[in-house]
Amino acid sequence: MTETIPPTERTRVVREAHRGAYDRETIYKILDEAYVCHVGFATDGQPFVIPTLFGRVGDAVYFHGSAASRMLRNVSEGISVCVTVTLTDGFVLARSVFNHSMNYRSVVALGKAVLVDAPEEKLEALRAFTEKIIPGRWNDARQPNEKELKATSILRLPLTEVSAKIRSGPVEDDAADYALPVWAGVIPLALTPGGPIRDEKCDVSIPTPGYAAQYRRRA
Amino acid sequence: MTETIPPTERTRVVREAHRGAYDRETIYKILDEAYVCHVGFATDGQPFVIPTLFGRVGDAVYFHGSAASRMLRNVSEGISVCVTVTLTDGFVLARSVFNHSMNYRSVVALGKAVLVDAPEEKLEALRAFTEKIIPGRWNDARQPNEKELKATSILRLPLTEVSAKIRSGPVEDDAADYALPVWAGVIPLALTPGGPIRDEKCDVSIPTPGYAAQYRRRA
Repeated sequence: MTETIPPTERTRVVREAHRGAYDRETIYKILDEAYVCHVGFATDGQPFVIPTLFGRVGDAVYFHGSAASRMLRNVSEGISVCVTVTLTDGFVLARSVFNHSMNYRSVVALGKAVLVDAPEEKLEALRAFTEKIIPGRWNDARQPNEKELKATSILRLPLTEVSAKIRSGPVEDDAADYALPVWAGVIPLALTPGGPIRDEKCDVSIPTPGYAAQYRRRA
Repeated sequence: MTETIPPTERTRVVREAHRGAYDRETIYKILDEAYVCHVGFATDGQPFVIPTLFGRVGDAVYFHGSAASRMLRNVSEGISVCVTVTLTDGFVLARSVFNHSMNYRSVVALGKAVLVDAPEEKLEALRAFTEKIIPGRWNDARQPNEKELKATSILRLPLTEVSAKIRSGPVEDDAADYALPVWAGVIPLALTPGGPIRDEKCDVSIPTPGYAAQYRRRA
């Protein structure tokens, strides 16, 4: 049975409360399917939201910290962040404009993010980023050297205060609107990979690996 | 000629500065292609990042304000927000792990967001949300009544402090790595619509409109 994370005042889904989900299995599935997270942090009351690659390792997410890292140099206890991940699954075309919506799955994780110091942990995080995008790629590519590891800022956020919000399924219209002669339904959306484009400088004698030729998104 | 928005200390792209773009045409094209924005705001030093539908009207973006609206009730001058929009265009598989990247186009807009009061302006914003998703839908669907308009919180952020960041094109590897026998290239990504799914309660005598049957994303 999957563990439930008790929602806090800050992570409980209030609006459309039935869309809230608090079990690790649901939350981790969303995190693992997404490639980009949006990291929020604030300086002097001004929030900033930066998209960045990320990965999950156990009960923590790791993300590139270049944007926020200036703030972190002298803050050993970390900085308050919000890491949000959103997957868009479809347009919901209701009979009324008011009930138009999207199908989506999102995760909001709050807490203090800290800079990762240990090279082994950095490596593990980079491996998670890479393997999330393309399982198998880590072993094929040249792995990071010491200089590159030093140049990479990675932040870790433990997944302790986190919730998901999900809208799925059909249109929900007001009772009176079902009689309207308006087409209603859902247009699904999916982030779809195209065929791989070989780098011009990549010799044709190097075969296209299966993970690129038959690339499929994790579902 | 398109207007350039002078970057501030907060919107100038510092890391990979050549990826920064500051002209309204580039910025607005990204905003208009995306469906979801991530809105950041902070309370007591804790940032929150919430995904929401949005639309652009002229030199402002409008977005649903339910998440942030509690904070706004008594703040006539508005609250500091960051509205970020990200389009993911492809995986960049370099020969080294370190140079793996994504192709993407993002916009970061900073400023004070205010609640929209005037019903006409709310209507215009909702129209922008709807027409962004599906041009033509606004005229087909039942339009908002007074009660629905009152129940809808809409926020407006003027696009005065805003920049874009774009990564496109091929792999960029370190000179020494081009000799490695590692496949390198780009796997394009696109958010792709599937065929429309008619609502079970939508009578088959109502024809599927062309905008749903032949749905195409704005490019």
